[in-house]
Amino acid sequence: MSETYHKHSGINPDFSVPGRKQKNIEYYVQGLRERNRFVLSECITLIESKNKVKRILADAILDSLPDSKENTLRVGITGSPGVGKSTFIESFGLFLITQNHRPAILAIDPSSQINKGSILGDKTRMQQLSADENAYIRPSPSNAVLGGIAAYTKEAIQLCDAAGFDFIIVETVGVGQSETEVDNITDVNILLLQPGAGDDIQGIKRGIVENADIFIINKADGAQFELARQTRSAYKNALQLFHHDISGWTCPVILTSAIEKKGLDDVYFSILEYVSLLKEKKLFKAKRQLQDFHWFEKQTFQKLQDIVFQHPEIKLKYATISAELQAGKTSATAAIHTMEEVFRKLINL
Amino acid sequence: MSETYHKHSGINPDFSVPGRKQKNIEYYVQGLRERNRFVLSECITLIESKNKVKRILADAILDSLPDSKENTLRVGITGSPGVGKSTFIESFGLFLITQNHRPAILAIDPSSQINKGSILGDKTRMQQLSADENAYIRPSPSNAVLGGIAAYTKEAIQLCDAAGFDFIIVETVGVGQSETEVDNITDVNILLLQPGAGDDIQGIKRGIVENADIFIINKADGAQFELARQTRSAYKNALQLFHHDISGWTCPVILTSAIEKKGLDDVYFSILEYVSLLKEKKLFKAKRQLQDFHWFEKQTFQKLQDIVFQHPEIKLKYATISAELQAGKTSATAAIHTMEEVFRKLINL
Repeated sequence: MSETYHKHSGINPDFSVPGRKQKNIEYYVQGLRERNRFVLSECITLIESKNKVKRILADAILDSLPDSKENTLRVGITGSPGVGKSTFIESFGLFLITQNHRPAILAIDPSSQINKGSILGDKTRMQQLSADENAYIRPSPSNAVLGGIAAYTKEAIQLCDAAGFDFIIVETVGVGQSETEVDNITDVNILLLQPGAGDDIQGIKRGIVENADIFIINKADGAQFELARQTRSAYKNALQLFHHDISGWTCPVILTSAIEKKGLDDVYFSILEYVSLLKEKKLFKAKRQLQDFHWFEKQTFQKLQDIVFQHPEIKLKYATISAELQAGKTSATAAIHTMEEVFRKLINL
Repeated sequence: MSETYHKHSGINPDFSVPGRKQKNIEYYVQGLRERNRFVLSECITLIESKNKVKRILADAILDSLPDSKENTLRVGITGSPGVGKSTFIESFGLFLITQNHRPAILAIDPSSQINKGSILGDKTRMQQLSADENAYIRPSPSNAVLGGIAAYTKEAIQLCDAAGFDFIIVETVGVGQSETEVDNITDVNILLLQPGAGDDIQGIKRGIVENADIFIINKADGAQFELARQTRSAYKNALQLFHHDISGWTCPVILTSAIEKKGLDDVYFSILEYVSLLKEKKLFKAKRQLQDFHWFEKQTFQKLQDIVFQHPEIKLKYATISAELQAGKTSATAAIHTMEEVFRKLINL
């Protein structure tokens, strides 16, 4: 077995974190294959770790995973706090289970720094879903994950995929830069809104709207139902004006009630419809390959920066020049020029 | 004079391109100060150049320029081919001259590769404006400018500024990545549309809409006037749903007729209004400083990449791994890991 895995990293399959007995790569890979949710959590904790030894182990595990399956969907769900995201995802996750899916939810919320990596927060948030053995919920890591939230999430997706979860939801609040990056690792993106658009209660930045493929007006129930309908028609009109990247796709605006469990099937079928359009246009696999390649490019350049800026001389020089630039003591052109010289000296070119 | 200029670059003020006599830094700086449009064109040609010696001269000139003035505006105008961009800019430019401005137009059109850097194309396009000595028009450089179009344009803006042009318009077609980057070097961004929105004739990507501060429906004349009004109200409604980054700003949607010279004053006053809101919120200067700093960061990392990837060993390794990744022979994780090792070896860390 060891020969088929570890083919790229060349790492000893018996490699393990010092002080932790018996938990070698095989333990993790085997655990994932057996769809063990506890092992999945352990693996995600490893990729979150800033400990170098743990990170080596994490890389070896990632490298040992089978290729991602094309029938596993990666769906981004973005919504401001208060639009009912947790309730919606819980209802939708339970609906997915009735459709024989195994949903995994990776939640990213940089604003909540309280329960760093602890599962408790979301266990309380989505009680029924987290109790179901066909679902997996992982709350946000702290902001300072190695390589950024997008890199972390991309790896977490791979792990969930390997553990047999075929409907992976990446939940974000849509306020920061890192979350728009998350769009680069998903197949479909959903924007969740509440009734009363245009009343300045959504707080949705235009950049988030840009990335959405499907719009949902949630809380379309009770006294708010009529308002939800109006909001829906306002968004439908607005979206006619802006082109979706995929020609032939008009973003649907769907009414849902997470509490009354209404509209969930519409959301599900819209996702499938979008994915089938992507596949028809031969864009599904192409998009993922492009995402992979961009990720490789981005991470490679990030690593280069990280390595070079670990060099004390460069670190100091960069800090000095940045300060001078911000104080108006040098021009950007001169500052760039100086850094260029520093790099040339370092690389001996 | 040489003591006040060249303070950062430390370059000999008599430095000149070999084979070109008499044209030293002083010639260019003096020419710019005298608002000589021919010298301005020569300077822009230098920053476009891929010749290393010319580039050193270009950097020295840029470094010798006085600081940008806060009363010089940088306005981005984006519009698909066919919306009447040239006619609008010509009419608007002539209007600006009546308001005692000196407009400079930097046109970026990656799709037109025919007249690389030649002025002829735009001379024909905006005949009346280009004949006016208070205006300056520079067509798009070829795509392959050193440091990318955004870097080139940022430098060209500085040169126009130094040559006394106080209303700098950056014209783009809004289809590529490089043009959305241009938004990072302007104070105000205008999206030019034509009557008949939602009829699938605009071809405007959602990402472009996101960056606009002012919307214009041009060609609001003759038989199209009523349609233009309808388009205006459709956009006005749509824009209510999406938040502008600057709270308190509602994007105006203005009807113009470039041919009948109508609505140009509305556009002008909207620009002034937006700028005064930015200044009131102390965001005008802050935005430019942030743009400068981001530019420094971006260009520094770009230079680092350029320098490192000039190294033959790294170049080859990167090409090999990229090909392996694209052929599915390695995983992105393993590929990143390999590049990391290559970098560490190079930097000796």
